[in-house]
Amino acid sequence: MLLTRTIAETRAVIADARTQGKRIGFVPTMGYLHEGHLKLIDIAKGHSDFVVVSIFVNPTQFSPTEDFAKYPRDFERDRRLCESRGTDLIFAPEVSEIYPERSLITLQIEKLADRLCGMRRPGHFNGVLLVVSKLFNIVQPNVAVFGQKDAQQLTIIKRFVQDLNFPVRIIAAPTVRESDGLAMSSRNIYLSPEQRAQSTVLYQALQRAKTLIEAGQRDAQKIVLEMQQLIATASEAKIDYIEIVSVSDLQPVKRLDGERQVLIALAVYFGRARLIDNIVLKIS
Amino acid sequence: MLLTRTIAETRAVIADARTQGKRIGFVPTMGYLHEGHLKLIDIAKGHSDFVVVSIFVNPTQFSPTEDFAKYPRDFERDRRLCESRGTDLIFAPEVSEIYPERSLITLQIEKLADRLCGMRRPGHFNGVLLVVSKLFNIVQPNVAVFGQKDAQQLTIIKRFVQDLNFPVRIIAAPTVRESDGLAMSSRNIYLSPEQRAQSTVLYQALQRAKTLIEAGQRDAQKIVLEMQQLIATASEAKIDYIEIVSVSDLQPVKRLDGERQVLIALAVYFGRARLIDNIVLKIS
Repeated sequence: MLLTRTIAETRAVIADARTQGKRIGFVPTMGYLHEGHLKLIDIAKGHSDFVVVSIFVNPTQFSPTEDFAKYPRDFERDRRLCESRGTDLIFAPEVSEIYPERSLITLQIEKLADRLCGMRRPGHFNGVLLVVSKLFNIVQPNVAVFGQKDAQQLTIIKRFVQDLNFPVRIIAAPTVRESDGLAMSSRNIYLSPEQRAQSTVLYQALQRAKTLIEAGQRDAQKIVLEMQQLIATASEAKIDYIEIVSVSDLQPVKRLDGERQVLIALAVYFGRARLIDNIVLKIS
Repeated sequence: MLLTRTIAETRAVIADARTQGKRIGFVPTMGYLHEGHLKLIDIAKGHSDFVVVSIFVNPTQFSPTEDFAKYPRDFERDRRLCESRGTDLIFAPEVSEIYPERSLITLQIEKLADRLCGMRRPGHFNGVLLVVSKLFNIVQPNVAVFGQKDAQQLTIIKRFVQDLNFPVRIIAAPTVRESDGLAMSSRNIYLSPEQRAQSTVLYQALQRAKTLIEAGQRDAQKIVLEMQQLIATASEAKIDYIEIVSVSDLQPVKRLDGERQVLIALAVYFGRARLIDNIVLKIS
């Protein structure tokens, strides 16, 4: 496994792989890897011949009040995990390599970014689009794998690639969960034992929604209300949002009628950890 | 010479050239080609093995009051001219191929776009950045050639490539002029014989500025005043702007002191033709 710190080295290594006829797979991460990330690597390997994992905690997607400085980092552990799953190249640049000066370019996306997490994290998706543009232009992957856990990010990236004609195929990877249902996240490390125990209500609430819909409930507000009540049983939980939206455009759905896919998404604070989770259901 | 109309064909043709080890040169145009464009093609040929010329009048860089519908077009002439200069591929898509739906993504650039032409053409450079992103992602050129005549566009594109790490080298091509000094432009076709005769004042005003600076004049306002007076001798001329700015960041220069490069840029209406021109001078 190779490791690069600069853009120039990264391009040289990847150009070499491409010259050998290899297809490039890409998994962008902020490091502190868990099994969810490693599944992204497995999927990338299944679709390419040379897998690049970037490890970069991107400052432009954090607001000043968020956890950029405290975001967990453990490079040596990440390196071992990447190697164990057959990664070909880790690209782990310093902030100054990616942002030698402040970008004058801003990328914005209408309609998809002002809801759900975007509403609570102003500028977050602009920062994501900026760094993904840069990383795509540095790595020039054939395929890139993003986790379904960040459902809004996935929808935004897909539309971004379509709108700007990036020559990259985006693959969605299913959310990986702990045995009790909690979605894996680098931020789970922030949870106290008590919060960790209570955090299972998130997946339970999503499962409750699924059960209700399967039983015929079609009123989104009623489903959300039951989810809120269930999550309220966890004393440490503070709901940021629970929303039911259309998968394709992230616009709210009031009645789950017609044939379509809905995204049931939530963000809930446990102490300083803001956890997100979601499920996608096909209504028919 | 090949001609493609779709993104898929274009990618296939260029992938084939790249497989043969060819470096890709790119000249994005809005068609109605003149000798200035053809010089861009010559330069692209000098830096690559396979030259792609795009011909696409990009609607997103025109405001509703501008000349998108009336912008001059003559595809058969453009095709002959491209062929005569050894173009390998013309990519001439329909609007619906490039914009199957409205882009939700907006690209903006701070500081460089709100002056000069950007001040008079709100949204213009957002449209340029959008189409250039798309074209770069479709063509994936090694080098792209842009004319110095659109000096602000050139500065913006260079910074855009730098900020987003596009793997493209930008080459600037000198302005090509008619024998009487008028900068070549597709919009010169709009000029009446009388306006065409008077339009030589633009280059004369730029030359006057050069002479003044060479003679030691360092007060930008005084230089601009003399340029205004010279242009005012043309009865059909209506000055949009005359500005002296730093080449690197397009910020206004009041005194031409120190060692630096200044851009003297102007935009002047003759009837419905809005003509731009500029010179770059090294102050020492």
